[in-house]
Amino acid sequence: MRTVEVSLAERSYRIRVGGSLLPRLGSECSQLKLGRRCAVVTDERVGPLHSATALQSLAAAGFDPVLVTVPSGEKTKSLKGVAACYDQFAAARLERKSFVVALGGGVVGDLAGFVAATYLRGLPFVQVPTTLLAQVDSSVGGKVGVNLPAGKNLVGAFHQPRLVLCDLDTLKTLPDREFRSGIAEVIKYGIIYDAAFFRRLERSLDRMLARDPSELAAVVARCCAIKAEVVGQDETESGLRAILNYGHTIGHGLEAISSYGKYLHGEAISIGQVAASHLSAARLGMPLQEVARVQGLFERAGLPVSVRLSAAQRRQLFDAMRLDKKVSAGEIKFVLARGIGHVEFGLAVPEVDVNRALELVQG
Amino acid sequence: MRTVEVSLAERSYRIRVGGSLLPRLGSECSQLKLGRRCAVVTDERVGPLHSATALQSLAAAGFDPVLVTVPSGEKTKSLKGVAACYDQFAAARLERKSFVVALGGGVVGDLAGFVAATYLRGLPFVQVPTTLLAQVDSSVGGKVGVNLPAGKNLVGAFHQPRLVLCDLDTLKTLPDREFRSGIAEVIKYGIIYDAAFFRRLERSLDRMLARDPSELAAVVARCCAIKAEVVGQDETESGLRAILNYGHTIGHGLEAISSYGKYLHGEAISIGQVAASHLSAARLGMPLQEVARVQGLFERAGLPVSVRLSAAQRRQLFDAMRLDKKVSAGEIKFVLARGIGHVEFGLAVPEVDVNRALELVQG
Repeated sequence: MRTVEVSLAERSYRIRVGGSLLPRLGSECSQLKLGRRCAVVTDERVGPLHSATALQSLAAAGFDPVLVTVPSGEKTKSLKGVAACYDQFAAARLERKSFVVALGGGVVGDLAGFVAATYLRGLPFVQVPTTLLAQVDSSVGGKVGVNLPAGKNLVGAFHQPRLVLCDLDTLKTLPDREFRSGIAEVIKYGIIYDAAFFRRLERSLDRMLARDPSELAAVVARCCAIKAEVVGQDETESGLRAILNYGHTIGHGLEAISSYGKYLHGEAISIGQVAASHLSAARLGMPLQEVARVQGLFERAGLPVSVRLSAAQRRQLFDAMRLDKKVSAGEIKFVLARGIGHVEFGLAVPEVDVNRALELVQG
Repeated sequence: MRTVEVSLAERSYRIRVGGSLLPRLGSECSQLKLGRRCAVVTDERVGPLHSATALQSLAAAGFDPVLVTVPSGEKTKSLKGVAACYDQFAAARLERKSFVVALGGGVVGDLAGFVAATYLRGLPFVQVPTTLLAQVDSSVGGKVGVNLPAGKNLVGAFHQPRLVLCDLDTLKTLPDREFRSGIAEVIKYGIIYDAAFFRRLERSLDRMLARDPSELAAVVARCCAIKAEVVGQDETESGLRAILNYGHTIGHGLEAISSYGKYLHGEAISIGQVAASHLSAARLGMPLQEVARVQGLFERAGLPVSVRLSAAQRRQLFDAMRLDKKVSAGEIKFVLARGIGHVEFGLAVPEVDVNRALELVQG
């Protein structure tokens, strides 16, 4: 088991990465001084696979868990999904010292985390991410929230978990498409922060795709460590944390205009990162050879790197991007790369350049 | 104009109390380093009276305000009300640096504050309370939230305002019933914190009921100062802050079982405080003569001090109280008084005693 510390003063916590961790959930929680009653929030796909182990482990450690199951998929990450959880929390008589366990992928973590942040003005919560994407990204850092029809993650809070438990065994049952979607966030860490890690991925992508346990352990732990470093420096995204959004402005826009149905998050930000790299070449002189390496790695991971958009869809995409949280004084702000491993954030970009980058990823 | 400081480190802010303050809203906001765009949230009753002044003042100071109007009444303080605000914020293209002005009573402040706390993971907000209850209580201290069908304020956040502007002129148009409702919170401060203030109210209640400007200024400022002292010592209600809930466990229960329709908040907690005082006599030996003074002051203020409950309603009331946020390990925790001006909190009370206190307020 590897341990990554997220240093945020009194909100600090640990990320555990390794195999066979879910059966230890209860004993890990015992160290956190939480109440007895807890709600395990999961979805209809993950629940049948892992909830029995989670509930058993919690009960064996003396906790009193109730199971809250929500439908699978991004559409659950909505105000309707939030309201359904509130009602079940009330029915289960959760109290201020009760806690919430999010058992599932990014949708479950973001939704359950937001519900935990706002029920009774805030309950402690524990993340047990069961997808690669959630393990390397969404479960760490305290960003929780849901989508509005108008845009992704427009509603939310900063609410740090008390513990993140990344059981690599849960990735064994992950459908191939979802696993590949997670790799889009893995590659992102190389681009924004660590050129050596990017080179490692170029060398070992096949082992990663084969879900080799030791490769998975090293990669997940490194991604968590990078995220922890960034979040430790800027918890509420007043500066540096924005670099984690590389490729996300266009990616979120693509998700919004397809009503969160067509693309998995990783697929949308794969296209978004390739577009952002073209934009980086135009605006910051990112070497074209590196843009090609970026695109090549996403392609090898089986991720989409192009999108066919009509003129009307292009306009919809711009409208959606203007609703992004990163907009300031009406200007869409981008994270762009000087090269692999080195990015800058808060950059205003003329619409004409964004359009040109979108043409370069036109399928 | 009087100024009360709320000392909460980097979240500190000022409460301004006085006449003719609303026309100064824009210039007061200018000192806070906020973005240009802002949303003024108000309701259908307050909007026609005060929104033009607020919008003019903001525009004159260089801000770009949009008006968001919600229906009047406690039923707006719901997830549906929240969703309606989110949609209007998205349509108005609010950004992270935009801010929210809550112009109205407690419902508007709690609702707009919660929306501000969660839209784009948190926007700054300014409270402009226009009811006595909101000026002396709900606008100060950062508790924001909405009701669920299962209970009052079950959903919420701690989100401190950047400024509270109590324009006493707005109280001139307040309906009598609402003004009296506010007095229930005013009297509470005497009971929980300040016996001399309670005696002042006994002497000067008639001037208060006549809305004498200098009496209003002194009373509102003193209530805000007491609340600021309590909140400054315990922002997130891990201890002392609980004393502000005197009479609220039973009061919230009464509101919940009447579907937030029958009682104004002040009316419900008037009955709740009288019941809590009977309970205080039984459990902590509060002198019966002081219980009588408490009941007498609420009566002089024209507030209800009794309630007729059927056996079924009594059971519903207990169910509602068990959902209260102050419940711990299944036990309902009470704030009780040793005497006027001196309370204790976190007290477990046998159901039989609660029942007896309820019998004493049975109409």
